[in-house]
Amino acid sequence: MLRIDGARLQQRLDDLGRVGAIEGGGVCRLALTDEDRAGRDLVTGWMRDLGLHVAIDPAGNVTGVRPGREGGPPVLTGSHIDTVATGGRYDGALGVLAGLEVVEALNDAGVETGAPLAVAFFSNEEGVRFQPDAMGSMIQQGHLPPGCMTEARDPEGRTYLAELERIGYRGETPFEAFRPRAFVELHIEQGPVLERERVTIGAVESVQGLLWLEVEFRGEANHAGTTPMSLRHDAGYAAGCLTAFVRQLAGEIGGHQVATVGSIRLKPDLANVVPKQANVTIDMRNTDDAALRHAAERIDAFAAEVAREEGLAFDVRRLSEHSPVSFDPRVVAIIDEAATSRGYPVKRMPSGASHDAQAFAPGCPTAMIFVPSVGGISHNVREFTETADIEAGTNVLLDTMVRLAEEDIQ
Amino acid sequence: MLRIDGARLQQRLDDLGRVGAIEGGGVCRLALTDEDRAGRDLVTGWMRDLGLHVAIDPAGNVTGVRPGREGGPPVLTGSHIDTVATGGRYDGALGVLAGLEVVEALNDAGVETGAPLAVAFFSNEEGVRFQPDAMGSMIQQGHLPPGCMTEARDPEGRTYLAELERIGYRGETPFEAFRPRAFVELHIEQGPVLERERVTIGAVESVQGLLWLEVEFRGEANHAGTTPMSLRHDAGYAAGCLTAFVRQLAGEIGGHQVATVGSIRLKPDLANVVPKQANVTIDMRNTDDAALRHAAERIDAFAAEVAREEGLAFDVRRLSEHSPVSFDPRVVAIIDEAATSRGYPVKRMPSGASHDAQAFAPGCPTAMIFVPSVGGISHNVREFTETADIEAGTNVLLDTMVRLAEEDIQ
Repeated sequence: MLRIDGARLQQRLDDLGRVGAIEGGGVCRLALTDEDRAGRDLVTGWMRDLGLHVAIDPAGNVTGVRPGREGGPPVLTGSHIDTVATGGRYDGALGVLAGLEVVEALNDAGVETGAPLAVAFFSNEEGVRFQPDAMGSMIQQGHLPPGCMTEARDPEGRTYLAELERIGYRGETPFEAFRPRAFVELHIEQGPVLERERVTIGAVESVQGLLWLEVEFRGEANHAGTTPMSLRHDAGYAAGCLTAFVRQLAGEIGGHQVATVGSIRLKPDLANVVPKQANVTIDMRNTDDAALRHAAERIDAFAAEVAREEGLAFDVRRLSEHSPVSFDPRVVAIIDEAATSRGYPVKRMPSGASHDAQAFAPGCPTAMIFVPSVGGISHNVREFTETADIEAGTNVLLDTMVRLAEEDIQ
Repeated sequence: MLRIDGARLQQRLDDLGRVGAIEGGGVCRLALTDEDRAGRDLVTGWMRDLGLHVAIDPAGNVTGVRPGREGGPPVLTGSHIDTVATGGRYDGALGVLAGLEVVEALNDAGVETGAPLAVAFFSNEEGVRFQPDAMGSMIQQGHLPPGCMTEARDPEGRTYLAELERIGYRGETPFEAFRPRAFVELHIEQGPVLERERVTIGAVESVQGLLWLEVEFRGEANHAGTTPMSLRHDAGYAAGCLTAFVRQLAGEIGGHQVATVGSIRLKPDLANVVPKQANVTIDMRNTDDAALRHAAERIDAFAAEVAREEGLAFDVRRLSEHSPVSFDPRVVAIIDEAATSRGYPVKRMPSGASHDAQAFAPGCPTAMIFVPSVGGISHNVREFTETADIEAGTNVLLDTMVRLAEEDIQ
């Protein structure tokens, strides 16, 4: 049985992790910065060393193709090498470098596949420097207009396009040239489930739909000592009740529903003044779109009820909304079988975070492979995945890509 | 029946309101600033114009005495002329200028009282620029050591003493010279009760005790999408539950209990991250010290319970604590009778805010007179009290001071 070389892959992870390294073992490689350019140069060099045919599109997405016995679209794997400001070494980088390791293992073994294979890294997945996130893959696959490259600006006002040109990664291969036969992405889980359940491989069936709400309550600032309880219009009280309700609602809906109040801001935010305004964000995710819509209706109703009781004005705003994405059950089954035949415990699961794979799911058979994140920690310098788990995930990626290149599941 | 001149008093309120005037009809006259000096110069000039004997103590408190038929300690009234940064024209100023109007009305009518009368203004009541609040009256009446004048510093590091000397209001009359026969302070309510109940005069029986708590919950920052509900340690959720509980607790205790969550701060305060830390302030006030202690115990117990259920660390810190103050029932009765005999609706009530009168209550018969605040608004440029109510309150102050100067309630 063909195996990838875990030590070689770990070496590349360590080498790339030194580009933009920050204290504590983390990485700061924000999209289209000098650090991103240095990371791109390193990875693109490795692609060429492995004999891949490198092509760059006008959004700066870089793809290296390994020819097959037949022509036609490749089986593609890939992820991103940009990071958040205090990111780790694995988020994104693993998926790209695991793809290179698959190629090198096949090269070493002299294995030729039916369809070509390809490895890509996509621009600005994190969405920290330029919004929205996953811009590179979404533009390439036709879900965002290329014009957003001139609209998206970093906090200093520089556009995505100007920065892409500055670092020399504005390519000329048209977006339409990148339509793979199938897409599979290896990624760290960024959550605690696999570690907690002692499972090595997640066969990712879907990405949870996301709904971000902001609820604003407006009441009256009053003196905390002189205003009787019965005469208050306390926006902070409503925020507290809503926060408790959001937890209760997640429990009632159950299943994969998660719901989070991450931000509460009061005005004037002084100990001795009844708050006149409260802004509360609610992040809700579910694989079931209907459940998500139901949750949003319950939030609307609750906000209206508490506002009425307390004598407050209120608004519920939708900050962001993404429908759930279902991956291809045939690709999920191939991942599941690959893990099982290698003896790795495997669990079918949704992804709670968004990924580049979402850009490919509408166009070709797509799925993802997760490996455990120690402590569920990600977007943090302490992000860590055991080498053994990385090796397992990459072996599953190898098997999955080879099967997708040989079998016709179109 | 002797009456004060409401128009004359209103004129002085308007004149003093122009010193440090800010947009919207408000005043910024922070303690010991140039604006405070200008206000002091104006009021001290009026004192001298009315024939009062002005004495200044080493904390900058200014007292003007009107001799009586007999010698001995005066019946004192007074308040403060410093304001918050965006204050109104009535908070404090009313109590000082009403005292001057009482003197002028008696002068005009040629009335001599048994005991002397006196009008004072006290330094730094608001406690905005220098902490603690009510420093002037508290130092004068022996409840704060004079050394705190060199310890208290404004945000630029200047001491109370240095600023007092700079504006020329460090006096030489020893604190011990200021021990009145009785003390009565007229003040705006700064709350909505009198207006709401269509009552003109509040006969203030007590000042609520105050307890400020800060509860800190510490959990774990986690990805809002990838962390199942069951694996969370969400400090923001605990903050929400606590906020709702504080309201419920105030209702259970009832009576004069008020309880306010004025500030909630989450870390990292991002929509898609489970909060790892929450800091919640709780302002609790009650005229009943035992009820206040009971409330604090209930908060402790609730914080412990929610922290245990959610797997959080927590601390409860006491930021500030003042026992309730009871005023003298004989002075309260005199105020009540004065209002009734003038035909003003009167209500016995506690004060939810603290006042200079608290410094006098332990040493001599003391009480306060409240007049309505329109909309309950104070510490705000929109602070307003109707001239008719100001006139009513000052007539009650007149009657009360005269009776206290004639009758022996010691």
